[in-house]
Amino acid sequence: MLGSTHGTLTTDSRRARAIACGEHPSPVVHGRPAATDDLDVSGRPLYADVPDLDRFFRPGSVAVVGASDAEGRPNTGITRQLLAWAERVGARLHPVHPTRQSVFGIPCSPAVADLPEQVDLAVLLVSDPLPVIEQLAETKVKFAVAFASGFAETGAEGAAAQERLAAAVARSGLRLLGPNTNLNAFERFRDDLDGPAIALITQSGHQGRPVFALQELGIRLSHWAPTGNEADLETADFISYFAEQPEVGAIAAYVEGLKDGRSFLLAADRAARRGVPVVAVKVGRTETGARTAASHTGKLTGADAVVDAAMRQFGVIRVDGLDELQDTAALLARARRRPDTEGGRPRTADGVVVYSISGGTGAHFADLAAEAGLHLPVLSEAKQAELHQWIPEYLNVANPVDNGGHPVGDWRGRKIIDAILDDPDVGVLICPITGPFPPMSDKLAQDLVDAAEQTDKLVCVVWGSPVGTEPAYRETLLGSSRVATFRTFANCITAVRAHLDHQRFTTAYRSPFDEAPRSPSPSYRKAQALMRPGQQLSEHAAKQLLRAYGIRVPREQLVTSAAAAVRAASLVGYPVVMKASGARIAHKTELGLVKIGLTSASQVRDAYRELTDIARYEGISLDGVLVCQMVERGVEMVVGVTHDRLFGPTVTVGLGGVLVEVLRDSAVRVPPFGEDQARAMLTELRGRALLDGVRGAPPADVDALVEVVLRVQRMALELGDDLAELDINPLMVLPRGQGAVALDALAVCR
Amino acid sequence: MLGSTHGTLTTDSRRARAIACGEHPSPVVHGRPAATDDLDVSGRPLYADVPDLDRFFRPGSVAVVGASDAEGRPNTGITRQLLAWAERVGARLHPVHPTRQSVFGIPCSPAVADLPEQVDLAVLLVSDPLPVIEQLAETKVKFAVAFASGFAETGAEGAAAQERLAAAVARSGLRLLGPNTNLNAFERFRDDLDGPAIALITQSGHQGRPVFALQELGIRLSHWAPTGNEADLETADFISYFAEQPEVGAIAAYVEGLKDGRSFLLAADRAARRGVPVVAVKVGRTETGARTAASHTGKLTGADAVVDAAMRQFGVIRVDGLDELQDTAALLARARRRPDTEGGRPRTADGVVVYSISGGTGAHFADLAAEAGLHLPVLSEAKQAELHQWIPEYLNVANPVDNGGHPVGDWRGRKIIDAILDDPDVGVLICPITGPFPPMSDKLAQDLVDAAEQTDKLVCVVWGSPVGTEPAYRETLLGSSRVATFRTFANCITAVRAHLDHQRFTTAYRSPFDEAPRSPSPSYRKAQALMRPGQQLSEHAAKQLLRAYGIRVPREQLVTSAAAAVRAASLVGYPVVMKASGARIAHKTELGLVKIGLTSASQVRDAYRELTDIARYEGISLDGVLVCQMVERGVEMVVGVTHDRLFGPTVTVGLGGVLVEVLRDSAVRVPPFGEDQARAMLTELRGRALLDGVRGAPPADVDALVEVVLRVQRMALELGDDLAELDINPLMVLPRGQGAVALDALAVCR
Repeated sequence: MLGSTHGTLTTDSRRARAIACGEHPSPVVHGRPAATDDLDVSGRPLYADVPDLDRFFRPGSVAVVGASDAEGRPNTGITRQLLAWAERVGARLHPVHPTRQSVFGIPCSPAVADLPEQVDLAVLLVSDPLPVIEQLAETKVKFAVAFASGFAETGAEGAAAQERLAAAVARSGLRLLGPNTNLNAFERFRDDLDGPAIALITQSGHQGRPVFALQELGIRLSHWAPTGNEADLETADFISYFAEQPEVGAIAAYVEGLKDGRSFLLAADRAARRGVPVVAVKVGRTETGARTAASHTGKLTGADAVVDAAMRQFGVIRVDGLDELQDTAALLARARRRPDTEGGRPRTADGVVVYSISGGTGAHFADLAAEAGLHLPVLSEAKQAELHQWIPEYLNVANPVDNGGHPVGDWRGRKIIDAILDDPDVGVLICPITGPFPPMSDKLAQDLVDAAEQTDKLVCVVWGSPVGTEPAYRETLLGSSRVATFRTFANCITAVRAHLDHQRFTTAYRSPFDEAPRSPSPSYRKAQALMRPGQQLSEHAAKQLLRAYGIRVPREQLVTSAAAAVRAASLVGYPVVMKASGARIAHKTELGLVKIGLTSASQVRDAYRELTDIARYEGISLDGVLVCQMVERGVEMVVGVTHDRLFGPTVTVGLGGVLVEVLRDSAVRVPPFGEDQARAMLTELRGRALLDGVRGAPPADVDALVEVVLRVQRMALELGDDLAELDINPLMVLPRGQGAVALDALAVCR
Repeated sequence: MLGSTHGTLTTDSRRARAIACGEHPSPVVHGRPAATDDLDVSGRPLYADVPDLDRFFRPGSVAVVGASDAEGRPNTGITRQLLAWAERVGARLHPVHPTRQSVFGIPCSPAVADLPEQVDLAVLLVSDPLPVIEQLAETKVKFAVAFASGFAETGAEGAAAQERLAAAVARSGLRLLGPNTNLNAFERFRDDLDGPAIALITQSGHQGRPVFALQELGIRLSHWAPTGNEADLETADFISYFAEQPEVGAIAAYVEGLKDGRSFLLAADRAARRGVPVVAVKVGRTETGARTAASHTGKLTGADAVVDAAMRQFGVIRVDGLDELQDTAALLARARRRPDTEGGRPRTADGVVVYSISGGTGAHFADLAAEAGLHLPVLSEAKQAELHQWIPEYLNVANPVDNGGHPVGDWRGRKIIDAILDDPDVGVLICPITGPFPPMSDKLAQDLVDAAEQTDKLVCVVWGSPVGTEPAYRETLLGSSRVATFRTFANCITAVRAHLDHQRFTTAYRSPFDEAPRSPSPSYRKAQALMRPGQQLSEHAAKQLLRAYGIRVPREQLVTSAAAAVRAASLVGYPVVMKASGARIAHKTELGLVKIGLTSASQVRDAYRELTDIARYEGISLDGVLVCQMVERGVEMVVGVTHDRLFGPTVTVGLGGVLVEVLRDSAVRVPPFGEDQARAMLTELRGRALLDGVRGAPPADVDALVEVVLRVQRMALELGDDLAELDINPLMVLPRGQGAVALDALAVCR
């Protein structure tokens, strides 16, 4: 890791853990990990190094290559801004220009080789950064930033130029931000704000502006990484680095495309282990968006459902709008992680109380909050009686708490808030103030701010006035670093939901990378013998592959004569199913190439003849006919493996049958994942109730289904890219305790 | 209609139309229509009178009953506000108080009988308005407002008091706003704002505040009706009235519960006929919300899916948040209705162009807009070439149009905007400005404002800065009555979508009330003979009911002996299905009470014995056994009628079968509705593709399905409340051209 203290520490701690686990320590490596115990069985890394970016954000000295003070030149404005920034962070700035003597009165070096000292950071304002990178390497500069555009975002030629740049960087030993980036990292951050901060990562500088502007609303920002085209340093590197900075409460990211799926997951894993929330906008919900985003920074986009799943697996909170990014990151940065017990007893789910000066407001907010899945507990009789000391009897205080307005104007206002926050069932108090009425709302805002100082519970206010220039909003509420203030019900609900979900996620999180298999299972050797590169396996061979991984298939025999079919049927046991078998048969059922419920030798003989006749008529070449055990009815599911451009092999589970095929009811996960995620996949299915048993059907063997999903994951990991596609359809999940059987399977080798 | 000019006109025009249609004119009536041609076949009204509220909003004289100027009394503040309002609208104000000589220097009448003139409006500040209503009736006051609370919102006792009040109002001939309302109708509206206005209706005054505050952002508001408990005047009355006011561009409503489903639909129909958009928040997405809202103004809530459908049928735009209500109503009030042709050719769908100074912003916005279903056409080659005169070649101008920033700073900025707006494929230009950068964004904002003045196309800006105090936003953009300005991508997309949808809706709208049946069909007499009050009909009887309405059922006979079963089978034609028949059999299939695919007399005989044995064993009383024609396979659907508390009978269509039953894939409509809505129901089904034919199945007879839905609607209308429930399950929809057959039916009479 470039000899950086930070990176070495991280590597060391990994080594320490490896030793503690009785493993052989891997050698300390520079750059990407190389030792085998750093890789999972598919050859993918299990750890990401954290680049030490301290000297990037707080350099001792900076070179500006292409600095200018000539009137009207774009570089002049940039140089001026860098000068101001260098002064703020206490860095010495050295202009570099082949012909100028000085820039803004500072002596200029003609080339980087002539710099008066070794610099931490070089900002490259030149249109072709490539030759400079090589010069910088010689002077042992740690970091460079390349502003130039015209790389991967412009097409194939630019992409090739970017590859040459990346290669030069890799050789150089320095780390590069850009190209196609900007000045955002060197903005003027407010240093008068308290509390945990948001660290911001954006692939479009302009799109980061609204988050940066949060500082004007009193929300602290600590860093901004405008990653541009990510020829070297990528979003994942900044997530990893920011997750380890003590001042960072939450990471906000605006992502157009990911450079590498795995490095993103490893970074998200690092944030998850530390409980640091990552909130991200990821463009690419639609083809339009994905295409336009790709042309902006020239990055790949995987299937959106896979991106969605990958983020959820690692606790990354995905939002759609920049306003949601702002509001959710601001709340998550500030919300305190609360202890797991309260008043001596284990803390139950964090209840949300809605408190308002209007019954209408409370009802409306509660309606939307309940719809979004927030838990609004009914307050206890005792608590309601307590509240009725200050609130008239005829008003509803069960939750939402309606105070009718008047009590907020006097001493009762604060008492009510404290009494709500004192309730052990309550973790969050939300006060929507839809219409400011200064005699009431000014005092209410101040009471909420004061109460929030005295509690570790979350206090949220929604300031509903579209005007937003009222003092109670601008000064009182935004002046507090403990109250989370929103402008809309929806954003408040989204952020609170994200916070509560993230708390639960963090508490339950176990990194799947710790459990990921590093060496092949005994199944692997058997499976390898069955693989046929470049071919689709026959149904029979595909089922053998499943058997190799311990997935149950029906008893079956492949036969090539009617007489053998009859012998097979008596071995398999009547009734039997017979199917044409061959490497390239699709839509067997539609073609009449499946015969079910055969109960006698004569039926088997007839079926054999019919199947081979149809195949001949259709010009389909068979490797034989399968005689299979009939399996009882259960719930038909589909389990499979497909490859995502960004994340590699993914595992899918869905409901089978024609109806649900139409409804596309399926869930996907990116390996590695644990049993918890395999179970969570099933809860995502809209037709999940089928597994629980409907219309008198017995509950299905969900444990067996989960086990199949995990075994399929193992196949995806071990067979890796060699297995282009796997599709078990249907997997018949039998009643509880009876297992699951793969009735048909398709496997394509690469 | 209280002799009001407006109401009489409306009634007259209805009479004129009735005469033109060759119908016998109904007598002019006061209050609710009573003549039979005002009612549909179910006895529900087909017209709502529009109350003339001119004198309510602009009275010549006002009495304030319970007026006060004593220090510290709540009524003093209210009186002061009413005085100021009366002065603004030019009304004479008369205080009424039993003991005071004068209030704020105005002579006081001891009782309403002593008022110096006949007043248009009486504001009742007394705690019990009931006795005053009777006095007001004698003095021929047109309108009263009752502030007092303690009515239906407090429980059964209050509800009874409210009924007494409503009865007194009905006797009195005056119209009442309230009780449990407030001063909102008498607020100070800004009168310096131009353009079409928003008229606001709220059932919670506090929840209307943010919409009222839009005036501070330059958006005109013309009226505010705080309807409170709606003992008399209800939300529907105000919708009808506002839809006829020339200054009203859109109606915004905050609804907690509806007093009457039908009157709401009739009001929405009136707005739809006039093309006036209604945007509504309707609380009650969840049980929590519905319950809390009911306890706030004491109103009913129907099933939320039915409310949703009813609103959609009549073009009411439902939103969830107050911010969406504000933003959507503001855009709809201002957006011009454009001609249906452009440049001599019919105007195609209104294309949306996204224009920004950052490729990232454009990509992000386009992604979200496309996901929401907005149409972003690719600009023509010629248009792109035109734009590239001013925008560098390497930037994408296909749509989104990325200008890279610089051209907005000079003369090119306006050229680009005009060129986009000049494109006949473009109906809407959206410019998201996520980060204000005054040298660019100030000029951009001004160019957009200027361009919007010159076009009837819609120009939208999203001002993404969370700060919102920037002059380009506050002064330039909010100062324009032609640019629609938003703070979030999501709200802009929601509002533009609502506008385009509403334009399409209005163009295609034909009122279903014009076509609604007024007299029973010949089917009705047959059906009546089959109804058994208070009973569930047997399957056979229920199918007879369907036959009466021309819905196809299988050939079948009800038999009571094995021999008769065999005779029936040969008449019906083999193969046959046999089913136990009786008034109260549920889950026939699960109990083994259905036998399918019987192909011989002996199978029929055996089946008869088995069915009667099972029924005996299970203690089920039969009226016989049905011998039915076997129907070929098709797509299984469900069509039914259920009753909604608010809207009465509703018609549902869904996919059949166990899988989709689990997924609850169905659509609902409130009668009356036309064929267009019956077809729209099918497009709402997630599994709609099944009807189009999947996996080689032929397309189903959708026309026949639509016809069944319309016939079921006719049943719902004619049988009205007598038919408590109807469920055709399954309706087998055969391949196109072959019809649809009701294989089983359940009917419950009331």
